[in-house]
Amino acid sequence: MDACPFCQSGIITHVFAETNHFWAVYNRAPILPGHSLILPKKHYESFFELDAAERLELIEFIDSTGRLLLHHFKGEGFNLALQDGWLAGQTVVHLHFHLMVRYEQDLPEPGSWYRALFLDELEPTGEEERTILSVSEMHEMVTSLRGLTGFRK
Amino acid sequence: MDACPFCQSGIITHVFAETNHFWAVYNRAPILPGHSLILPKKHYESFFELDAAERLELIEFIDSTGRLLLHHFKGEGFNLALQDGWLAGQTVVHLHFHLMVRYEQDLPEPGSWYRALFLDELEPTGEEERTILSVSEMHEMVTSLRGLTGFRK
Repeated sequence: MDACPFCQSGIITHVFAETNHFWAVYNRAPILPGHSLILPKKHYESFFELDAAERLELIEFIDSTGRLLLHHFKGEGFNLALQDGWLAGQTVVHLHFHLMVRYEQDLPEPGSWYRALFLDELEPTGEEERTILSVSEMHEMVTSLRGLTGFRK
Repeated sequence: MDACPFCQSGIITHVFAETNHFWAVYNRAPILPGHSLILPKKHYESFFELDAAERLELIEFIDSTGRLLLHHFKGEGFNLALQDGWLAGQTVVHLHFHLMVRYEQDLPEPGSWYRALFLDELEPTGEEERTILSVSEMHEMVTSLRGLTGFRK
């Protein structure tokens, strides 16, 4: 858990919204504009570790964050994806859902982004469809989103 | 809506569990054993048409159905995926979540199944990783799962 990238204190600089038990985090190597993660503040590995109250909080947060991102980035579609377990393609072993805003002619195929996820999640190389944001780009993006959600660290 | 494959009466033969507003359906062309769908009984196109009570019911149903499938098929991982909108890869325009049970060395890459989804969802050809179940195979599978859930049509 000590080595978990989502449990480091620096993660807070990527957070743009929260509930009691979850954070919404902007991806530092977004495959498409708006690419964000929903994750529990506590180090759970699996969806099946959540209790009923956390599941309710999660689905409401997915709904509100999805709406916010679609509106802000002017998307026309939306993917939600969970990789639960190493065999499912989970490379960061801390439960997280990907929210992906979609656009006209954004990728070669609707599912192209899944491959980029698995190859690059831990150590994005900047190849394929992923561009790594600089510290100042990330700051600007998160500040802009925090302006909509009212989140203050 | 008349042409929606999930709104046809025949869908009931694929159902193995239900809540008030949702069905769990076994996929007629499973990419891997256990490949199932969660969908609303009502013809919603998008996740954002659900109300708060339906969202709660949905996340609880995903949890219970996911656990059931992982246990029954002896899986070691689990994917949940939503394609919301044509640009996101949604080929059947009736809201549905894919539940995919995962196994050791099941596919060339963790994300291989997403491509098969988009290519084959409406009219599975039996190519790639997908095998179309016969009527009797589907009946046997659904009967077996209904034995666990107690669902009766």
